[in-house]
Amino acid sequence: MKIISSPLELKEQLKEVHKTVGFIPTMGALHEGHISLIKKAKEQNEFVVVSVFLNPTQFLKDEDLDKYPKKDEADKKICELSGVDILFLPSADVMYGEDEVALLAPKVRGYVLEGFSRPSHFNGVLTVVMKLLNIVNPTRAYFGKKDAQQLNLISLMVKQLFMDVEIVPVDTVREKDGLALSSRNAYLTPSHREEALKIPSSLRTASAMVSKGVLDSKEITSKMREVLAPLEIFYVEILDREFNQISHVEIGNTVILVEVKVGTTRLLDNIWL
Amino acid sequence: MKIISSPLELKEQLKEVHKTVGFIPTMGALHEGHISLIKKAKEQNEFVVVSVFLNPTQFLKDEDLDKYPKKDEADKKICELSGVDILFLPSADVMYGEDEVALLAPKVRGYVLEGFSRPSHFNGVLTVVMKLLNIVNPTRAYFGKKDAQQLNLISLMVKQLFMDVEIVPVDTVREKDGLALSSRNAYLTPSHREEALKIPSSLRTASAMVSKGVLDSKEITSKMREVLAPLEIFYVEILDREFNQISHVEIGNTVILVEVKVGTTRLLDNIWL
Repeated sequence: MKIISSPLELKEQLKEVHKTVGFIPTMGALHEGHISLIKKAKEQNEFVVVSVFLNPTQFLKDEDLDKYPKKDEADKKICELSGVDILFLPSADVMYGEDEVALLAPKVRGYVLEGFSRPSHFNGVLTVVMKLLNIVNPTRAYFGKKDAQQLNLISLMVKQLFMDVEIVPVDTVREKDGLALSSRNAYLTPSHREEALKIPSSLRTASAMVSKGVLDSKEITSKMREVLAPLEIFYVEILDREFNQISHVEIGNTVILVEVKVGTTRLLDNIWL
Repeated sequence: MKIISSPLELKEQLKEVHKTVGFIPTMGALHEGHISLIKKAKEQNEFVVVSVFLNPTQFLKDEDLDKYPKKDEADKKICELSGVDILFLPSADVMYGEDEVALLAPKVRGYVLEGFSRPSHFNGVLTVVMKLLNIVNPTRAYFGKKDAQQLNLISLMVKQLFMDVEIVPVDTVREKDGLALSSRNAYLTPSHREEALKIPSSLRTASAMVSKGVLDSKEITSKMREVLAPLEIFYVEILDREFNQISHVEIGNTVILVEVKVGTTRLLDNIWL
């Protein structure tokens, strides 16, 4: 595995690679969720690139970028063992300069849900993803379904700006007890971790209701709120796959999304029905 | 010459073109200035694509998009006679959808000069140029030096977002009496056209002062303002090639820019020293 930190060097190297390229952009602190993205990329492409870059522009001013878990050595090991061909490890100063052109998230879909409590967060996400996609120029790029709104906005960007890459959504990986894997789980104390199980539990409740023929969004979300209590809820929403609110679950075209605060940590999860 | 109106059809067609591609994005009403861009593209590339698209997002709400001169048939003829291979003529509804991701001009360099009196104008310019560059995926794209700030911001976008295209600046084409060619000259009455000659005259004054060793920016711009009077002046600025203000002309690294209102028409011009 090669480790490269210069965007222009990576660009040059990849010009010599006449193969299908799968790309997984990450913020590091890699876990089984990331490994499943890498596996999928290995299956579908001849060459795999992973980036680890803790992107400052997607953190708001009052959010603690420095606290985000960093595990560079473990990340390298995981990539190596997973058969990654190139690990891209840029620093912030090669990725960003002064007074830059940036991406602007859609005025509606970029400012609901996660974007409502974190305005401008998705501008930062889209900007760094655009930069990374232009540097790597992959055949396919892999994103977890757990960050469903991020996945939705990146897919929109690629379509609306006529970019040349296939965005591949990958299923969420969960612990045995149902908690979705997230680098942020590292922040949880054992008792917070226990409380966090209310999240997958609320999604299972929703899923069970739908199985029994209950499709009314309000009925489902109010039951989910009961399951989540007393956690602080940012949102519980039932949307179609294009992220429009729907009054009734449409099987095959629905995402049910939850975000809550556990201790001081925001945790999100969702199911696709 | 092929005429194509669908972005995806153009993208598909160009995938079969294994040649260097030169691209000239325009808003139509083509004149000798555009023809000089096409000629340069023909010299440097094996295949040439021109787009004619009157981009709505770069006009502000109070600006009259509908009044912009339209000359579709003449444009087709000019492209055909200039040896263009593909003319791309999309409609607004295939270029834009609802609630879209957009580009955001840099907070400083995007909001001075033209961007000061037309805030958000350059967001629209960058968004459409990004879309067009992604559709055509050219080897080189050609822009006139007359719209110097636009050229500067597009070059910044390409560099900062790591895009794969060479931006080629092309010298301004002028009438015999010095007036820079512009689709907007069509708005001028004969007496306004006469007044507009103060613009190239002010630039010649600046150039003559520099030849005589006068390099002080304030001295030069105050003389230029005298030449331009009584026209309404939006700005007269002396900048380096990166668009920073400079107190003294630096030969080989300076742009002197003027924008004025003649009648109801904004006209801009500049010289590169």
